[in-house]
Amino acid sequence: MTDSQKSMPANAKLVFKGKIFEVWQWEQKMFDGSLEVFEQLRRPNTAIMIATVEDKILIEVQEQPNRPRPFLSLPGGRCDWEENPLAAARRELLEETGYESRDWTLWKELNPVGKIEWTVYTYIARNCVQKKAPHLDAGEKITTRLIGFEEFLMLSEDPTFYERELAGVLLRTRYDPNAKEEFYNLLFKTS
Amino acid sequence: MTDSQKSMPANAKLVFKGKIFEVWQWEQKMFDGSLEVFEQLRRPNTAIMIATVEDKILIEVQEQPNRPRPFLSLPGGRCDWEENPLAAARRELLEETGYESRDWTLWKELNPVGKIEWTVYTYIARNCVQKKAPHLDAGEKITTRLIGFEEFLMLSEDPTFYERELAGVLLRTRYDPNAKEEFYNLLFKTS
Repeated sequence: MTDSQKSMPANAKLVFKGKIFEVWQWEQKMFDGSLEVFEQLRRPNTAIMIATVEDKILIEVQEQPNRPRPFLSLPGGRCDWEENPLAAARRELLEETGYESRDWTLWKELNPVGKIEWTVYTYIARNCVQKKAPHLDAGEKITTRLIGFEEFLMLSEDPTFYERELAGVLLRTRYDPNAKEEFYNLLFKTS
Repeated sequence: MTDSQKSMPANAKLVFKGKIFEVWQWEQKMFDGSLEVFEQLRRPNTAIMIATVEDKILIEVQEQPNRPRPFLSLPGGRCDWEENPLAAARRELLEETGYESRDWTLWKELNPVGKIEWTVYTYIARNCVQKKAPHLDAGEKITTRLIGFEEFLMLSEDPTFYERELAGVLLRTRYDPNAKEEFYNLLFKTS
């Protein structure tokens, strides 16, 4: 999705506020001058990360209360409204895995889908160190795994891997030696 | 997104119905037995298509009233609630481009994003023939272009290409000769 769909028009009005989603509407002038009600959502942003521990990558095996099967994901989660995404990323990494990093880079900033004002911030968190035990919510069942770089690149082929938007990067990295070296350095060389 | 998120739980209640989006909520039992309100959306499904005309592919250059710049997309659009997706695909192709096909294959059925009950049906519509002039809504400004297979595969690199979820397929097809031949046959050989 392009940045053109990111900001709500100035005349948009909040018509419903749910637990996660807000619904906004406005009168939009059409190409023939007529007016129509347009609708768009807002939801809190998301912060996720590729977290490295020595030469491994930290991934999660998650279960959620309304999903029948476990799935793989990167660490991360929902930002609080107005929360700085890097602060949210640090908080989620510590809560979900007990790890901390002192070497963060914002890698991608994506709007995954049309009609929703929602940004997914993806960070690289290098040289993570375990500081304490994970602290999970009542709605979380998470275990962590450390996997190698090559195994990580194969996650594009795993239908349970949650971050589908990264599949293209993983695929390109497997096929293109230059992209692979660049991605490896991004993850494992201290910035 | 996996199929596990597709269906709303039986105890979900509609709490808001907008122009496009419905908001549903339910009480969800957590792993420790406590209850929390979970929220999920429903929206009408989408039907899009790779439409071929002889050895070319029909793509659209679109403008929309709330977007500052034109963008590229496949033909297609929103299904009416309960509308059969193939019927919606035929209707959208005819309205937006004036073309018809007698050779349709359902190629992909994807749930693009978590927390939204929403399926994008992608069809192959082979050997399209122009039957009449396009018939556009007041909110549509669409012109069509016929492009070759190689140019189509490069759309993964075009940041304005709307169907981001196809970028992985186009990329794999460029790198893997077997995948390329298979995709070419899917598009251009009569089924």
